[in-house]
Amino acid sequence: MSRPEPGDVCTVACVGTGVIGGGWVAYYLSRGFRVRAWDPAEDAEVRLRHLVDRAWPALTRLGTAPGASRDRLEVFDDLAEALAGAQLVQESVPEQLDLKRRLLAEVDLLADPDVVISSSTSGFGMSEMQVDCAHPGRTVVGHPFNPPYLIPLVEVVGGELTDPATVAWAAEFYRMAGKSVIVLDREVPGFVANRLQEALWREALHMVAEGEATVEQIDRSITEGPGLRWPIHGPMLTFHLAGGPGGMAHMLDHFGPSLKSPWTRLTAAELTPALRDAVVAGCDREAAGRTVDDLVSERDEGIIAVLGALGRL
Amino acid sequence: MSRPEPGDVCTVACVGTGVIGGGWVAYYLSRGFRVRAWDPAEDAEVRLRHLVDRAWPALTRLGTAPGASRDRLEVFDDLAEALAGAQLVQESVPEQLDLKRRLLAEVDLLADPDVVISSSTSGFGMSEMQVDCAHPGRTVVGHPFNPPYLIPLVEVVGGELTDPATVAWAAEFYRMAGKSVIVLDREVPGFVANRLQEALWREALHMVAEGEATVEQIDRSITEGPGLRWPIHGPMLTFHLAGGPGGMAHMLDHFGPSLKSPWTRLTAAELTPALRDAVVAGCDREAAGRTVDDLVSERDEGIIAVLGALGRL
Repeated sequence: MSRPEPGDVCTVACVGTGVIGGGWVAYYLSRGFRVRAWDPAEDAEVRLRHLVDRAWPALTRLGTAPGASRDRLEVFDDLAEALAGAQLVQESVPEQLDLKRRLLAEVDLLADPDVVISSSTSGFGMSEMQVDCAHPGRTVVGHPFNPPYLIPLVEVVGGELTDPATVAWAAEFYRMAGKSVIVLDREVPGFVANRLQEALWREALHMVAEGEATVEQIDRSITEGPGLRWPIHGPMLTFHLAGGPGGMAHMLDHFGPSLKSPWTRLTAAELTPALRDAVVAGCDREAAGRTVDDLVSERDEGIIAVLGALGRL
Repeated sequence: MSRPEPGDVCTVACVGTGVIGGGWVAYYLSRGFRVRAWDPAEDAEVRLRHLVDRAWPALTRLGTAPGASRDRLEVFDDLAEALAGAQLVQESVPEQLDLKRRLLAEVDLLADPDVVISSSTSGFGMSEMQVDCAHPGRTVVGHPFNPPYLIPLVEVVGGELTDPATVAWAAEFYRMAGKSVIVLDREVPGFVANRLQEALWREALHMVAEGEATVEQIDRSITEGPGLRWPIHGPMLTFHLAGGPGGMAHMLDHFGPSLKSPWTRLTAAELTPALRDAVVAGCDREAAGRTVDDLVSERDEGIIAVLGALGRL
């Protein structure tokens, strides 16, 4: 079997079916794929079918693809059987490097050598996971967010031995499967979103540890505060708006020095002219001709829609 | 004049009417208050009325209070006139400590001594701002989020010389004015939400500086990823769900060691047993009897509502 076109994949193997792997199973089924699942845990099939059943009403509301059916899920005791005929392997075993290495090597031995093997790892680089694979060129990271059946983002990045064609194929596969894909040129621990989320989480832990805020205050400060903006504009465009008509350039030039304020235990990045220019240029590209006024209207309409959708108006 | 009950306030003075102060003006008008505004900038009134006009359709959609009218805005050239008869002063001048100190002292001299003076500062503690006030007991921080007319959060915290009754009064005033209030016991630079937001922002700047991700990738990683969860559950409850049925306790006990992973340039908090227990107990309080399954359903329904509301289904 040669590698199919990304849009021609019909059958996916899901290796490891916990919260993330099981979420992938539910998503792939809803997009009309046949799913062949394997997980060594004793009650894995019961838990998996429970997870899929729980997710199904949400997926139905989102709108399923032709052929979407929970009957297209088959669970196997034997890994080789699960992999037979699969045109993509989604690996989602627990986040332990030894385990990932061993499992990927085993999958690599058993699966057709043309099939792309994508790992859901939330933090390891493929370079450190692919070391025992006979065909590391077809291994890649395809990192989803919980729940994988609802959050669009998938971060795609290869390892040192990954064939660039594998990265391109995986990115296109996820896009055609309905995901929002970010392709990273470089391996960085935690990729993008988890690094950002982790920075926030660490500061939150410091605040609890120091008695500066309670768990409830931390959560409410986000859900009632900046969290209402983040589904609409990310942190960069958010600060682009904070700069008023002058946008990010004004923001960095006037508030840049406050980067040195003792907020958070994260060492501040040095605001070099190059960093300043890169951030300003990026915001201009994102704005794509929309003025700050346009973006403010977009944000306001979005916040109202989100508040309304959450029954908080 | 003695201090009114928080629910009896009719007239608010807004000192400084830029993006934040002007946003407050729009919000207070929409809640039916009379607003007396002052700002020394030459074109301040034109910009303020433009900001209020731009915000008004959004506020109308949110639902205004009886008496809400843009005609209830008066703009004064003279600070003393603006303060005359005001029952609360909302100070929102630029974020410079000298300026804040001088302005607060001047407002303190001019305003009726019973009137609470609340500062929109996004990072200074009231202790460092109230030093030149003759009546520092009635000064307090009431920190909103941009845009103040849509984001519910207001963080309330006093300084060393603030009367505790002022903190309680301000918290109740903001609640009765429709805000979601967090009262902090301790002054910490950046309060809660800005510290969290700043941690994320600093990591984002590091990533751009290192060439690890573009501005667009950073924003998309949030708007298509964890940003979709944050209007529903804050960072703590989000990780409570990531622990599966075992919740935050399972999460911390199993993934705690990964705190040491080289994600973000923020030094990791030491996960002491006390910190572990405080975080677990806080999540249990927040869950308030809801199982992880209940919270998963809540999150899924929320994400679908948010995606639908943003036209992304």
